[in-house]
Amino acid sequence: MKHMYLNNLPLFDAKALYFAHLRKAGVSARTETVPAADACGRVLAHAVYAKICSPHYNASAMDGVAVRAADTFGASERSPLTLTPQMYRVVDTGDPIPDGFDAVIMVEDLTDAPDGCFRILSGVHPWQNVRQVGEDVCMGDMIALSDTTLTPALCGALLAGGITEVEVRRRPLVGIIPTGDEIVPPTDAPQTGEIIEFNSAVFRGMIEEYGARAKTYPIVPDRREAISDALRTALAECDVVLISAGSSAGRDDYTSEIISSLGAVVVHGLAIKPGKPAVLGEVGGKPVIGLPGYPVSAIVVMTEIVSEVLSLYGATAPQPPQTVRAVLGQKLVSSLKYTEYVRVALGRLGGKYLASPLPRGAGVITSFTKADGILTVAQNREGYEAGEEVDVRLLRPLSETERTLIVTGSHDPLIDEVCDLLRLRHASFRVSSTHVGSMGAIRAVKSGLAHMGAIHLLDSETGEYNKSFVRRAFPDGGAVIERGVGRVQGLMVQKGNPLGIREFRDVQNVRYVNRQRGAGTRILCDHLIAANGMRAETISGYDNEEYTHTGVAALIAAGNADAGLGIYSAARMYDLDFIPICRERYDFLIDKKYKDDAMVRAFLATLRSAACRERLSRMGGYDTEG
Amino acid sequence: MKHMYLNNLPLFDAKALYFAHLRKAGVSARTETVPAADACGRVLAHAVYAKICSPHYNASAMDGVAVRAADTFGASERSPLTLTPQMYRVVDTGDPIPDGFDAVIMVEDLTDAPDGCFRILSGVHPWQNVRQVGEDVCMGDMIALSDTTLTPALCGALLAGGITEVEVRRRPLVGIIPTGDEIVPPTDAPQTGEIIEFNSAVFRGMIEEYGARAKTYPIVPDRREAISDALRTALAECDVVLISAGSSAGRDDYTSEIISSLGAVVVHGLAIKPGKPAVLGEVGGKPVIGLPGYPVSAIVVMTEIVSEVLSLYGATAPQPPQTVRAVLGQKLVSSLKYTEYVRVALGRLGGKYLASPLPRGAGVITSFTKADGILTVAQNREGYEAGEEVDVRLLRPLSETERTLIVTGSHDPLIDEVCDLLRLRHASFRVSSTHVGSMGAIRAVKSGLAHMGAIHLLDSETGEYNKSFVRRAFPDGGAVIERGVGRVQGLMVQKGNPLGIREFRDVQNVRYVNRQRGAGTRILCDHLIAANGMRAETISGYDNEEYTHTGVAALIAAGNADAGLGIYSAARMYDLDFIPICRERYDFLIDKKYKDDAMVRAFLATLRSAACRERLSRMGGYDTEG
Repeated sequence: MKHMYLNNLPLFDAKALYFAHLRKAGVSARTETVPAADACGRVLAHAVYAKICSPHYNASAMDGVAVRAADTFGASERSPLTLTPQMYRVVDTGDPIPDGFDAVIMVEDLTDAPDGCFRILSGVHPWQNVRQVGEDVCMGDMIALSDTTLTPALCGALLAGGITEVEVRRRPLVGIIPTGDEIVPPTDAPQTGEIIEFNSAVFRGMIEEYGARAKTYPIVPDRREAISDALRTALAECDVVLISAGSSAGRDDYTSEIISSLGAVVVHGLAIKPGKPAVLGEVGGKPVIGLPGYPVSAIVVMTEIVSEVLSLYGATAPQPPQTVRAVLGQKLVSSLKYTEYVRVALGRLGGKYLASPLPRGAGVITSFTKADGILTVAQNREGYEAGEEVDVRLLRPLSETERTLIVTGSHDPLIDEVCDLLRLRHASFRVSSTHVGSMGAIRAVKSGLAHMGAIHLLDSETGEYNKSFVRRAFPDGGAVIERGVGRVQGLMVQKGNPLGIREFRDVQNVRYVNRQRGAGTRILCDHLIAANGMRAETISGYDNEEYTHTGVAALIAAGNADAGLGIYSAARMYDLDFIPICRERYDFLIDKKYKDDAMVRAFLATLRSAACRERLSRMGGYDTEG
Repeated sequence: MKHMYLNNLPLFDAKALYFAHLRKAGVSARTETVPAADACGRVLAHAVYAKICSPHYNASAMDGVAVRAADTFGASERSPLTLTPQMYRVVDTGDPIPDGFDAVIMVEDLTDAPDGCFRILSGVHPWQNVRQVGEDVCMGDMIALSDTTLTPALCGALLAGGITEVEVRRRPLVGIIPTGDEIVPPTDAPQTGEIIEFNSAVFRGMIEEYGARAKTYPIVPDRREAISDALRTALAECDVVLISAGSSAGRDDYTSEIISSLGAVVVHGLAIKPGKPAVLGEVGGKPVIGLPGYPVSAIVVMTEIVSEVLSLYGATAPQPPQTVRAVLGQKLVSSLKYTEYVRVALGRLGGKYLASPLPRGAGVITSFTKADGILTVAQNREGYEAGEEVDVRLLRPLSETERTLIVTGSHDPLIDEVCDLLRLRHASFRVSSTHVGSMGAIRAVKSGLAHMGAIHLLDSETGEYNKSFVRRAFPDGGAVIERGVGRVQGLMVQKGNPLGIREFRDVQNVRYVNRQRGAGTRILCDHLIAANGMRAETISGYDNEEYTHTGVAALIAAGNADAGLGIYSAARMYDLDFIPICRERYDFLIDKKYKDDAMVRAFLATLRSAACRERLSRMGGYDTEG
């Protein structure tokens, strides 16, 4: 079988090579002229100087009458002065000061007198109540520097200075060519083997954030000629071309050889993870980049390479990356073979920022949707210890992190429902929820890594839920339990229960799917195994671990397994049969420090609201009494 | 003359009244359905749950062969195992795992053997190298909460979860009606009395920042019927209408009565500065707002009222305002009559943020282009002392402020040129430059309010520039002088010098325009007055003060004055005659602490660069020797 190894070039070297190549190939900023009134958000190619003054004539700053200041000297309450019609001209705000006049008396200070005269009780000095020429902008003054992104106010200042058109950086057009035999346009009913093409939508959004424009071409199958033709078409229309998937060195990976045949491949294979199989090329003076098919890999290459390629066109003003110093919530191991980009969730607890690594799989796009930042683990590092301080590059403003409630622990879809209701009630609060299991929740609250944790822990000896575990973990208090809900746990099995499973001991003879170590449901499983005198080693699939109830349900529905423990609502969602095993308490453990925190109170109030009850009753299997 | 007084309603009360009215009138969020692939940047109306799992079938995570894990147990380097063709199926990344198979061995781990067999040196466990159903997203999982702004990654996650369309908040359409007899479309050659209509461009940009869409209607003259017709047209097409100018209570101010006649005026006149003459109205269930004609006033009403009105439509996710605690650089007096919004420049010096108030005139749009933040002075405060800590609402990211070099002092256009060149060389540095005169520069550096100051101070006794002043201000050192340029100061007079001015003493008999107290050029003026045995009180226009050389030149060119002191380049820009008076040193005073600061060094290096020399020689009147 054909297999080629890629390069493993450190990113720094790869970028140095590639950008030197692109500059030599003539990649650089272009400009275009646009009306200043439509230039908001565009980047100025050059400094702009006012062509005229603003105001460009002496303008009345008030409604009133224009006068000669010298005529009004000496007017006072004791000796009012009468303005005869020859001594004034009526002016409104913005009107030019008539020739020979040099000040304005405002209408509030005028008293009507006979024969079209006015009486005044005080004089004005020259240019009083007049916006003199150039008050705002003087002709010749620099209004905006080169490379400035025009704000609404700047557009106004340009127009005020007589600038009707501005030369701005042209926004490069980026062509996106999705490739792959298995790729289909967005659908809610893909066939087995069909992969929904969503990467191009992600790229398009990112490209627009980088100040460029995107054009997505139709999906091209994995045929050399077809991809080659699509590339030629895109090159004729675009400034930059991205070829999505096919960037590795497998049987159907043509990107590299096609770019080679039309131009130059500068780098193929980066020492980064995810994102290794990228192709950095150039054809006819235009960057052509092969992006990996895995979405997370592709996003990393977009962030690390494509954003910089697009910055060569100068269409967005350079923004320094925003970083924050954070404490790492758990140990992180990385390889010396590459620089790794780890998505992290951020929270602020006890005056510090905490970074919690998210799932690292290259196919897990949801790790990006939940991420608040990126932790870069340099190639020469084997990782970080829990508690170490690290620099995290922000993906969203830190102010959002400040208002984030960190809820961790056992998975239950109800947490998402509470988050959603909370968001509708308290728009400024965010919740970051992660699934680390009930034992993970206790550890996290104990180590100050979460405001609160969700737990359902059965004490095999007492048959009691949660209390004994918390007493053991917090012998001196330090955490409180807030009552959550009761819920039904049971065995989820294929629709119609074809294997005739009746009770837990029946899993001995089928393919089981388990939850991860530390999960409350795993503890329940081990309790049931012991109670039934079974042995874990003999259960097929005991080592097949999922992190959520829906994850277990999905595998049973897909036929990867025959049975697994989970809550009723998950079984119902997947239309599985459900064999109830027990009712359990799903409660919330709260660090005593945060017991009266506004976000914690709001979370609990939302949990106990009628709206939440209604959602839970629709999901089924919950008991919200008390 | 007709004059009506407006209300002076505190903003809080005005908003309470207005928003209660709008809610009662039925103003609320509307939704629309858009393709998920195009929904980036839109705000979700509801929580979205995955319709399918992603992956939705068990997919190979690698190029290689699918096997039954059980077949491979026991393979090792010592006892390699041979996979016969019946034992495997070739799969590429993303291919479905064929029925009956449950793991993948990657191509790198296969050794070719005869008869289509492969040899392997280690086994795989069930589901190894397989992306099991739901690895990324499980059907039924909540992918995104209500009111979430969709990021590129979230759009990807939605599509991965089988969501092809999403219900998002409709972006309201805001109609803008510019009014006024004196208003003309953007031009670089307005006639006297014509005012360039730039407010609508500013509003448009702001409206888009608020997540809405804008439609600008043609300019309408100050006629009741015309404005009324324009409003009716806009109401038929838009969700919200803004009427620009005419919102006060003068002769030609019709906004309030027109809104009254068609619907309701809820508030007319706010206790805010700038922004007082705003009209908050409603017609047929749609907000109609009369904005003041002065751009700064209008921007304040946009920020304080219109942004909140638009937030009722839910088209942008609520963003908490970002604020920073800063030390006020100078005393600020405000009135008890209103809440005042003061634009401030921000800098970071000595570990603290410093806020310097910018010009407060309602017509000075450039105060917004230079502003980094807004200081709100509550109605019940008479102001703040210099050095007091205040909260500043940010207009740009704080990270930009961190990288801002603060240069203050004497005005010279060369500073703008250095800033521009600096920006082209060091994209991440920003410069904040303000004109406070040479004495102001010394005070600012001494009080730690600026990194560096520009000074040109003539010591009347010694005839020496700058040194003696700095020695007096910093008797123990603490600041150093870096050599800047030599420049020519002189009298600027009308083109052709119609009044036959020959030397400084001739200003006695003409209309003079002066610079502000503390400016080096003002000190030169006073020195010349004394040296010529003149008296300031007798010079007409001695009290007419401008802050910049171009400001003085503009007034002479406009005929407001006959002569003023300034530098050659300003005279040349305005095509004025110039009578040289002296050559002076224009130097930079630098706080010793910042002498080796990277931004300070970069500024000075840029000042001394060939590119800068070339720009200065084009401007004329500078001596860059040494």
